[in-house]
Amino acid sequence: MPIADRMIARVAAFAVIKDMFEEGRRLKAEFGPDNVYDFSLGNPDVPPPEEFRRILREMTAADGLDHGYAPVTGHFHVREALAGRLQEEQGIAIPPDLILMTVGAAGALNDILRALMNPGEEFVTPAPYFLGYENYAFLADVALVSAPTDARFHLDVAAIEKALTFKTRVVLINSPNNPSGAVYSPAELKALGDLLQRASARFGKRIYLVSDEPYRRIVYDVAVPAVFTAYPHSIVVNSFSKELSLAGERIGYLAVHPDADDAAQILAAAAAINSMSVVNAPGLFQQAAARVLGAAVDVSSYRRRRDLMAAALDDAGYQFTLPEGAFYLFPKSPIADDVRFTQILKEERILVSPGRAFGSPGCFRISYAVPEAVITGSREGFRRALQKAQG
Amino acid sequence: MPIADRMIARVAAFAVIKDMFEEGRRLKAEFGPDNVYDFSLGNPDVPPPEEFRRILREMTAADGLDHGYAPVTGHFHVREALAGRLQEEQGIAIPPDLILMTVGAAGALNDILRALMNPGEEFVTPAPYFLGYENYAFLADVALVSAPTDARFHLDVAAIEKALTFKTRVVLINSPNNPSGAVYSPAELKALGDLLQRASARFGKRIYLVSDEPYRRIVYDVAVPAVFTAYPHSIVVNSFSKELSLAGERIGYLAVHPDADDAAQILAAAAAINSMSVVNAPGLFQQAAARVLGAAVDVSSYRRRRDLMAAALDDAGYQFTLPEGAFYLFPKSPIADDVRFTQILKEERILVSPGRAFGSPGCFRISYAVPEAVITGSREGFRRALQKAQG
Repeated sequence: MPIADRMIARVAAFAVIKDMFEEGRRLKAEFGPDNVYDFSLGNPDVPPPEEFRRILREMTAADGLDHGYAPVTGHFHVREALAGRLQEEQGIAIPPDLILMTVGAAGALNDILRALMNPGEEFVTPAPYFLGYENYAFLADVALVSAPTDARFHLDVAAIEKALTFKTRVVLINSPNNPSGAVYSPAELKALGDLLQRASARFGKRIYLVSDEPYRRIVYDVAVPAVFTAYPHSIVVNSFSKELSLAGERIGYLAVHPDADDAAQILAAAAAINSMSVVNAPGLFQQAAARVLGAAVDVSSYRRRRDLMAAALDDAGYQFTLPEGAFYLFPKSPIADDVRFTQILKEERILVSPGRAFGSPGCFRISYAVPEAVITGSREGFRRALQKAQG
Repeated sequence: MPIADRMIARVAAFAVIKDMFEEGRRLKAEFGPDNVYDFSLGNPDVPPPEEFRRILREMTAADGLDHGYAPVTGHFHVREALAGRLQEEQGIAIPPDLILMTVGAAGALNDILRALMNPGEEFVTPAPYFLGYENYAFLADVALVSAPTDARFHLDVAAIEKALTFKTRVVLINSPNNPSGAVYSPAELKALGDLLQRASARFGKRIYLVSDEPYRRIVYDVAVPAVFTAYPHSIVVNSFSKELSLAGERIGYLAVHPDADDAAQILAAAAAINSMSVVNAPGLFQQAAARVLGAAVDVSSYRRRRDLMAAALDDAGYQFTLPEGAFYLFPKSPIADDVRFTQILKEERILVSPGRAFGSPGCFRISYAVPEAVITGSREGFRRALQKAQG
């Protein structure tokens, strides 16, 4: 086999995803795009804020716009602007030198996991978890260990404690959560921070907390608490993919808590990985994003969709927890086999993702980053699928 | 140590580079930027073609510009446009499905090395080589094995043959070469292709040729020949960093020869790595670049600088080979210790890179992607440094 041995299973896994995608295209071609209800993608469809579009037009119209290499860690004025914002969000001052601009949150997570972890070590993450985490584990040659959450997908700190071993280097959380929509409370974060202090002492090595927060600005009636006040040995990861609908332009960042053990060394190691992998985060868009840090996409449109989707599922008889953030619903599959249930939904021309892709079999994920007509059009299909599954 | 063991030496190496950079800044602050002659960076300073700037303004002015995720392999229309261009350059038809859009050439090289190579395998590259290659080897957990070139920095195929072992999976070439400026001839590539056919048969496994060509459009009086006609088991890597002066926007690509063993599988594996690492190449700039594939920066300005720099070195008594492409000169250090000689040059406020950073001690690299005034201003300093070294 000419490709690397370790890539064979990965290529096969990607082929399965591609086949699902192709089948969606085939359905749309056969039945017309308006008659296929595609909830399978997490691609924001709300336009970027008008303020962002204006800034981008201004920047590209200016004479002498420089597209040369950016500094490895990102433009200083960009990190300075982000430091101000992070201080508001996290409640402590963060020097620009502890911020690294990255190729999206994916780039940031790849950078920090490789920076902190030796091959064979483990990171613990609550399930359900974003499916990219398995990829980042693969690239860093480390193991993903999942810990269950409670019935509302909130942190079960005792379950995390059980999952910790002498091989654990990182606990990775994602709040607001993809796929569950849970937003962890200050009390949960505090309990987690206390656990990690105790566990670091017990195992005789520092366990870091990495908080992946790309949906921070997409919340309904809750605020996302500051992980930095709950545990000093923390790294925050974020991106502009969702809050500015810039997913394809790949701008993210990470920030290391200034009181984290060896904070400067951690940033330097993450910057080294960043430089070796991608050289720098794209130059124009990091600067454009930094100029509209107060702006965000229209969250009210996501809220309307959430409520519409929740009402449809409720009417049909599905069990689910109302999401507090992000743009996903994660209902219980009416049959134990969630992959089978996604096939039943597909017979109704409804495309969703099985829960086992997120480490949580028995559920399925709906991305409601879709036009409202897709939601209303799918109501009868969801109802029939439930009846079919139960019948 | 809280960072990963394997990162400790890397962080130290990056700290050395950062110190050099900081010392350059300190010199500029002390003596004024016009009195420091900085030839240390490979950052194109020629502006992007006006046609590109116009396209970018048009795209950002349009209503409804979509910044959502791009397909993992890149937008189809972008790959279709590139297929046409690659056919002109490589002399054979290349299906868009064998092209992958990447985060610069660095992203492409990381993708293809991880796609092809098992940990512990080797790639062979002629020295001097681009210093990023050591980083890509580190990330893929494989070994860089260098082979000497001839006195004019052209391929020594016998030396490459000697470097091949049963662990060799890839030969990686870079033409036009950074740092030497050599452009390998059709006969050299043919001899290399023949060698790799023989060696693949002898070792009972396919050795692939990866050709890294980001300076393809920056050549003087020579054309860059087609590697695809020299050896079918080849992958071409390129970027828009130099030809459009877009280095900071991170748009590159790779293309697999359609007759390469398992071509589709190789592309799929590289795409999987790309997806796991960075999700997609930045969306707006890949589309903007694809609309100006005929355009390139003004090469005549690089030629004037090359000639000016070469005249200055010649007058001062340096030994060097006139570069056929790219924007670097790689003279012989007048003393064996090239690091020591870069320090002597620094006393003249001239900043260059030591040859050992490129696997070739005894030389030093000048990047002439600088204003002409920097070159003329440095003439006396180069002369004095040579005298000092020889005295």
